[in-house]
Amino acid sequence: MLKLFCAPGSCARASHIALREAEAEFELHFVDFAAAEQRTRTYREVNPKGRVPALQTERGVITETPAILVYIGQSYPAAGLAPLDDPFEFARLQSFASYLCATVHVAHAHARRGERWADDESAIAEMKRKAPTVMADCFQLIEDEFLAGPWVMGEAYSVVDPYLFTISQWLQFHRIDTARYPKVHEHLQRMLERPAVRAALQAESVG
Amino acid sequence: MLKLFCAPGSCARASHIALREAEAEFELHFVDFAAAEQRTRTYREVNPKGRVPALQTERGVITETPAILVYIGQSYPAAGLAPLDDPFEFARLQSFASYLCATVHVAHAHARRGERWADDESAIAEMKRKAPTVMADCFQLIEDEFLAGPWVMGEAYSVVDPYLFTISQWLQFHRIDTARYPKVHEHLQRMLERPAVRAALQAESVG
Repeated sequence: MLKLFCAPGSCARASHIALREAEAEFELHFVDFAAAEQRTRTYREVNPKGRVPALQTERGVITETPAILVYIGQSYPAAGLAPLDDPFEFARLQSFASYLCATVHVAHAHARRGERWADDESAIAEMKRKAPTVMADCFQLIEDEFLAGPWVMGEAYSVVDPYLFTISQWLQFHRIDTARYPKVHEHLQRMLERPAVRAALQAESVG
Repeated sequence: MLKLFCAPGSCARASHIALREAEAEFELHFVDFAAAEQRTRTYREVNPKGRVPALQTERGVITETPAILVYIGQSYPAAGLAPLDDPFEFARLQSFASYLCATVHVAHAHARRGERWADDESAIAEMKRKAPTVMADCFQLIEDEFLAGPWVMGEAYSVVDPYLFTISQWLQFHRIDTARYPKVHEHLQRMLERPAVRAALQAESVG
């Protein structure tokens, strides 16, 4: 059975929701960040990067949210979670996932994990100070250019919807009101109505 | 015809090489970074992010290297540049592309574009100082865990080979000798023997 290594509220939530949307059979393993489980030898054998998510499959472990999301889309085609047979539409989906992963998530990480890129305390504090501005710029671009609505890709719900939802929820940490971005805000509300999303949030809250 | 918006030596080189490997018909547009063309209104109509690469197709523009690479793989199946029909192998490819995009490229950017994440000069200098250490850690992980050899995925050459090649070439900027990573080093040399790679480097040098 598939096993998702995750942590509540982390970007692994996107994969968690997608697995539920696909009606996949899976189990969750909550990596204990408070106890630094992600740095243990046991976990590094699962994911040498020491991060979540990691999806253990019968053939091996998959890491990186964009890869896991598409794997779910491709492995459960009946759920219709990715336009796999249309190279241009699929590229649109991939482009959106890549932007969230390499730009928006990275912007967020500067507020919480600045030690990845600097050792000096004042430099880490400066990154933290600027992070909400960078996040706001990213979400303005998502609002103006990339979120077709009602779902990210337009009429079709896809694996990047849980990804946007997960990262939109982080705006609160930056004290940014999602209402500044009407389409993003509506998307977040719409996501909260989905049974798969509710079930994932419930599972993470008791995890 | 496809049109690739790129800049010599940038991460767009990966897409540039992949287009040549696929024997695609395309033209290049070199975005003039010295003249800040990427920030012009005209270019922002192509790519609102103001970055390269951007691939203009008949149906619209695709941005983000992982999305463009897979689009090329999917649009030119005869070239066999991506294991599209094997969800696990495809996820391995996607995971590697995502790591280069969201972790390794980001580590590199801290040496050159620190202003994305901090305004304070000393914080930008501190990021620059640490960047080679972070890059070295990333390449150690690539060497030890992710580069199957002789190509990234193993015996099959794929679209992520030009991507690794492009970013490996940046190690010189960080004064890191690629010989520290024997598999990466051999991969780079092997890439330099490919006609598509030579043609791309030649086109970028006269661009």
